[in-house]
Amino acid sequence: MHKTSSASSLGPGGLDLSQAFFRPIHNAAPPSPTNRHTKITVVGAGNVGMAIAQTILTQDLVDEIALVDAKADMLRGEMLDLQHAAAFLPRTTILASSSDYAVTSGSDLIVVTAGARQVPGESRLNLLQRNVALFRGIIPALVKHSPDAILLVVSNPVDILTYVAWKISGFPSNRVIGSGTNLDSSRFRFLLADHLDVNAQDVQAYVVGEHGDSSVALWSSISVGGVPVLSFLERQQIPYEKEMLEKIHREVVDGAYEVISLKGYTSWAIGYSVASLARTLLRDQRSIHPVSVLARGFHGIDGGDVFLSLPAQLGRGGVVGVTNVHMTDEEVQRLKASAETLLELQSQLDI
Amino acid sequence: MHKTSSASSLGPGGLDLSQAFFRPIHNAAPPSPTNRHTKITVVGAGNVGMAIAQTILTQDLVDEIALVDAKADMLRGEMLDLQHAAAFLPRTTILASSSDYAVTSGSDLIVVTAGARQVPGESRLNLLQRNVALFRGIIPALVKHSPDAILLVVSNPVDILTYVAWKISGFPSNRVIGSGTNLDSSRFRFLLADHLDVNAQDVQAYVVGEHGDSSVALWSSISVGGVPVLSFLERQQIPYEKEMLEKIHREVVDGAYEVISLKGYTSWAIGYSVASLARTLLRDQRSIHPVSVLARGFHGIDGGDVFLSLPAQLGRGGVVGVTNVHMTDEEVQRLKASAETLLELQSQLDI
Amino acid sequence: MHKTSSASSLGPGGLDLSQAFFRPIHNAAPPSPTNRHTKITVVGAGNVGMAIAQTILTQDLVDEIALVDAKADMLRGEMLDLQHAAAFLPRTTILASSSDYAVTSGSDLIVVTAGARQVPGESRLNLLQRNVALFRGIIPALVKHSPDAILLVVSNPVDILTYVAWKISGFPSNRVIGSGTNLDSSRFRFLLADHLDVNAQDVQAYVVGEHGDSSVALWSSISVGGVPVLSFLERQQIPYEKEMLEKIHREVVDGAYEVISLKGYTSWAIGYSVASLARTLLRDQRSIHPVSVLARGFHGIDGGDVFLSLPAQLGRGGVVGVTNVHMTDEEVQRLKASAETLLELQSQLDI
Amino acid sequence: MHKTSSASSLGPGGLDLSQAFFRPIHNAAPPSPTNRHTKITVVGAGNVGMAIAQTILTQDLVDEIALVDAKADMLRGEMLDLQHAAAFLPRTTILASSSDYAVTSGSDLIVVTAGARQVPGESRLNLLQRNVALFRGIIPALVKHSPDAILLVVSNPVDILTYVAWKISGFPSNRVIGSGTNLDSSRFRFLLADHLDVNAQDVQAYVVGEHGDSSVALWSSISVGGVPVLSFLERQQIPYEKEMLEKIHREVVDGAYEVISLKGYTSWAIGYSVASLARTLLRDQRSIHPVSVLARGFHGIDGGDVFLSLPAQLGRGGVVGVTNVHMTDEEVQRLKASAETLLELQSQLDI
Repeated sequence: MHKTSSASSLGPGGLDLSQAFFRPIHNAAPPSPTNRHTKITVVGAGNVGMAIAQTILTQDLVDEIALVDAKADMLRGEMLDLQHAAAFLPRTTILASSSDYAVTSGSDLIVVTAGARQVPGESRLNLLQRNVALFRGIIPALVKHSPDAILLVVSNPVDILTYVAWKISGFPSNRVIGSGTNLDSSRFRFLLADHLDVNAQDVQAYVVGEHGDSSVALWSSISVGGVPVLSFLERQQIPYEKEMLEKIHREVVDGAYEVISLKGYTSWAIGYSVASLARTLLRDQRSIHPVSVLARGFHGIDGGDVFLSLPAQLGRGGVVGVTNVHMTDEEVQRLKASAETLLELQSQLDI
Repeated sequence: MHKTSSASSLGPGGLDLSQAFFRPIHNAAPPSPTNRHTKITVVGAGNVGMAIAQTILTQDLVDEIALVDAKADMLRGEMLDLQHAAAFLPRTTILASSSDYAVTSGSDLIVVTAGARQVPGESRLNLLQRNVALFRGIIPALVKHSPDAILLVVSNPVDILTYVAWKISGFPSNRVIGSGTNLDSSRFRFLLADHLDVNAQDVQAYVVGEHGDSSVALWSSISVGGVPVLSFLERQQIPYEKEMLEKIHREVVDGAYEVISLKGYTSWAIGYSVASLARTLLRDQRSIHPVSVLARGFHGIDGGDVFLSLPAQLGRGGVVGVTNVHMTDEEVQRLKASAETLLELQSQLDI
Repeated sequence: MHKTSSASSLGPGGLDLSQAFFRPIHNAAPPSPTNRHTKITVVGAGNVGMAIAQTILTQDLVDEIALVDAKADMLRGEMLDLQHAAAFLPRTTILASSSDYAVTSGSDLIVVTAGARQVPGESRLNLLQRNVALFRGIIPALVKHSPDAILLVVSNPVDILTYVAWKISGFPSNRVIGSGTNLDSSRFRFLLADHLDVNAQDVQAYVVGEHGDSSVALWSSISVGGVPVLSFLERQQIPYEKEMLEKIHREVVDGAYEVISLKGYTSWAIGYSVASLARTLLRDQRSIHPVSVLARGFHGIDGGDVFLSLPAQLGRGGVVGVTNVHMTDEEVQRLKASAETLLELQSQLDI
Repeated sequence: MHKTSSASSLGPGGLDLSQAFFRPIHNAAPPSPTNRHTKITVVGAGNVGMAIAQTILTQDLVDEIALVDAKADMLRGEMLDLQHAAAFLPRTTILASSSDYAVTSGSDLIVVTAGARQVPGESRLNLLQRNVALFRGIIPALVKHSPDAILLVVSNPVDILTYVAWKISGFPSNRVIGSGTNLDSSRFRFLLADHLDVNAQDVQAYVVGEHGDSSVALWSSISVGGVPVLSFLERQQIPYEKEMLEKIHREVVDGAYEVISLKGYTSWAIGYSVASLARTLLRDQRSIHPVSVLARGFHGIDGGDVFLSLPAQLGRGGVVGVTNVHMTDEEVQRLKASAETLLELQSQLDI
């Protein structure tokens, strides 16, 4: 396949400048087929998908990026816009197709941002069922061309759609992940860091469970520079009010809504969040991220196969394991309630 | 000023967690006022401005980014969207204001992407005059708060608006630059690199002059890995057709139009292009970029003060000098024709 | 000052190629004096100093690096060796002088690695007194040329020499820091991460107090991905043995000795450790590092001015504050014992 | 294999903290065998080998680094010294062995820096023959464990030892490369950039041919920002003196000797030079570097198989092609003379 799908045809009249310029050396052999590139596919070239693709490109994480979207014109525009920056970036091949999934072939990671939008008056179940139909149309083709890839679902509602992607793909559970509360946790850490005037990377704090309104902030997980905050306050006999903590959590949950109400959508933060996951996965960093994983068997979730965000160690093979983070009884109850709601919804879906 | 303008107030009831957590050491002195940050301001938080701000943030070029835009809601949404990624990035302060230019105070570099849009039926001159009015509203406030900054104009028509910004700012000419043909040259290099299957960073080639349809591709400037292409072809007695070269130039010029017709606007490539200029300027890289500079006195341009793109060496003080690149008589004629058109237009403006 | 002190004089017969190649633009003004570079000075160009300088150069942290060492030939060799890599790196000015401290002028950060070596049979006090004499020879000249710099002492014994540098410099305490147990803590985190097969960046754990044999490992500070390890084990009713923990600490303390016994000195890890501190300081990252700071008033240390490593938040102004990390009574006792030993030694020094 | 070969055994009494901390998710599958890492092996852990390994580690180019050296103690010291920096770096596995080449298994790139040192009074041929014996001892074991690797020879005399490595390895010629004049060219570009006060990355200039005293500086290849210098001077009627150019070339050739005479060896610049080659090769950058390749058939070299530096396009498969750079008759004659000298020497070797 040509380096780019821009299919330029600059060389007229049989002149191949490339051949004129470079001559192979004596006795050379073709590159070994085992010499493979690192490749990522982003499905859905809307604001979220493009923020992800562009951040990954800027951070020089992969050798090849493939974009897929049904809107052919917009997609080609986005591809060209990235390609035109070639002189400012390390060499990365950028491919795009609105119809031919062959461009995604051999991906190490597939990020799915595509999703149906709610029609006014449409029920949540009906919308979900339409998303299932959408995933049925794209997941098998993706799986066929990249049977060893990791699937990372960003489309919302992310937990249930990660489950759907898992079922349709037939992939082992460690290779299907939802972006889940990775971004919620970053918003949480930012709010705490902003308040304490520290680096957000020094703040540890998890939001787990279902992405969105029902997410669970793990108060006991907050630490700054390795110092657990709640027990620090206790020890210093500094009182803190439950309301304050709940106010912070509300700000985290409302963060996405606020950005959407202000600029119409979210893009940059989710772009950085997914790029961070991509780095951990592709470079086998073994870092811990709160992402949506098959949660069956953790914290007493035993009603069936359900995906929820838990602090998971990620690496080249996807999910390595889940951290046994401490939760209070109340937190466990809220997690289980989410699991039951999701299982109930799943049981009504025709996957 | 608070680290972010999100002005969170998490600490209720007088509890200042930050003070509880950290105690100053004995005998400490406040930071010296000479310990300053690197700061960039982006004026205009549309697609172009945000692609620039986000690319600069990802590439970790500055300690502080200030955003200015008249649309307060959208601006706050963009600021929050960037801030929410704090946990994934080195610590960078992100400020925004739709009305108070104090947030831009002490900028080292100011990137102007704001511009009026053409009203159907509006003459080019009328549009320009409205942009002059817009610049009159923003440039003096920017200059007041950052008297030592470099002004980098991205708004179109870039050459004449760079002239306008120079006149209004009262800055010395080395501190007023237009993004000019920096991106056109990258498109040129990409098309050549794509054809030759080489790294675009190994291709040298300049598009100079007026940004847009009248730009001048310097054929004799094309080299690959340091090998001048035209003289190489001559020496190897490989014929090349003038049409081919003109076809490439047409593709470069049409590149922006094509992306706009396909996705509605350009953003990513101009974002990388300006981030690359920002790096050269702020880190004093002394690299050569084709950007719009006061061209009076170069290549026989002597009719007055006019900004056109020429290969300029850039550093911490702005324009260090202009490279004496070779041009054919025809190329010089086209450059001078652009200069005269711009001077004529400028003479009709009320600045 | 010339870009490098290599003082090449390639242009013969009055030919100034630079002037021929670049011409200033019309109406240009000289760069404003407030447009300043980021500069670091490394004093001592031995294995440690050069590993620091080279890591900082590779990580592109500063615009200018100055090297100082009494051995003029070796120093020039090291400077040239770094300069020869210019084509592979962003443009950084590299200066060196064995006698003229003017090359260090205007440094933002000064890293001191110089130190006298123990003569066989020499007492610890005598060695120390020789180091005080050495510091008296270099610190005033450094301070004179960079009155606003942060002093970062790496020379051993680091805690007492940081105290000496503080006294001689007359700097406020927040601008004098010792590398202290920053590297010990990294070794600690590596050993834990290696055992758990996680990313060492996900492991939080502090070694504090006096750098070397008397350092104190804070067991309760160990957390992995934000999960405190000791309370986790307790909760899971997993027994752990105190011996195991002490074995790890012993490995940490022995780490430096082991490397020295095997390769003759340590270099790479201290290079990365100091580069990490340099980044936090110069880019105002507000990150928390265990470094040697004026510890008076913390954890009951009240016998006088003494430097010991504590988790400190660092930024552009040096030490921002010290974290109130929890210590057991035993840990506090060991810290205070170190403080008393150091104070006793200091009282015998003639500074 | 364990993540590091430090083989720590912290967990006593059967306690496996790692298993306690992380639990696999339901239905997980082992990582696919096609999910492979990027790996580099450096043979020879002296100053040159370690500068290469450390620069590659800092630049985060690979997932795994293996070190091989006959000196077991020193080697283990170097490995530990790099490992201790884990908390400051992205997670990279660092392995080392003085005897078991299994640690090098599956390398994508093998850098050979090992070489015998000249014994006083020893003839050049005798030294070479000892190096052949050394290569016979290590190359087959390396090839056996990494049959698809690219071999990059740094040991001197580099051109003839690259030939030796090629013969012994049985690899196709595109997968055997010598570092050749890549560093000489960087020194050349630095000296020119220093003189012109430009960024060395904007200077194009090749030193080709035999690495060392007989290298050939291609004057006509010098360009700055894409402007060919010699024709520029001609056009501006600026005279230049051949002596000046020869003086620069002499400085380039003497550069290595000067550094060796001053500090005893060269390390940093060769480290950056090889790291730059590693990046181009492993990330398939298709960039052009002057490196030692099988030169038979280029510029009239037809006397046999000989390796000499020519501007070669490099990528994931090794050498992609050689650029048809223009040389004067005199330059061709000097290149051919080097080829004949090397062929004559090779004919006396028992490989």
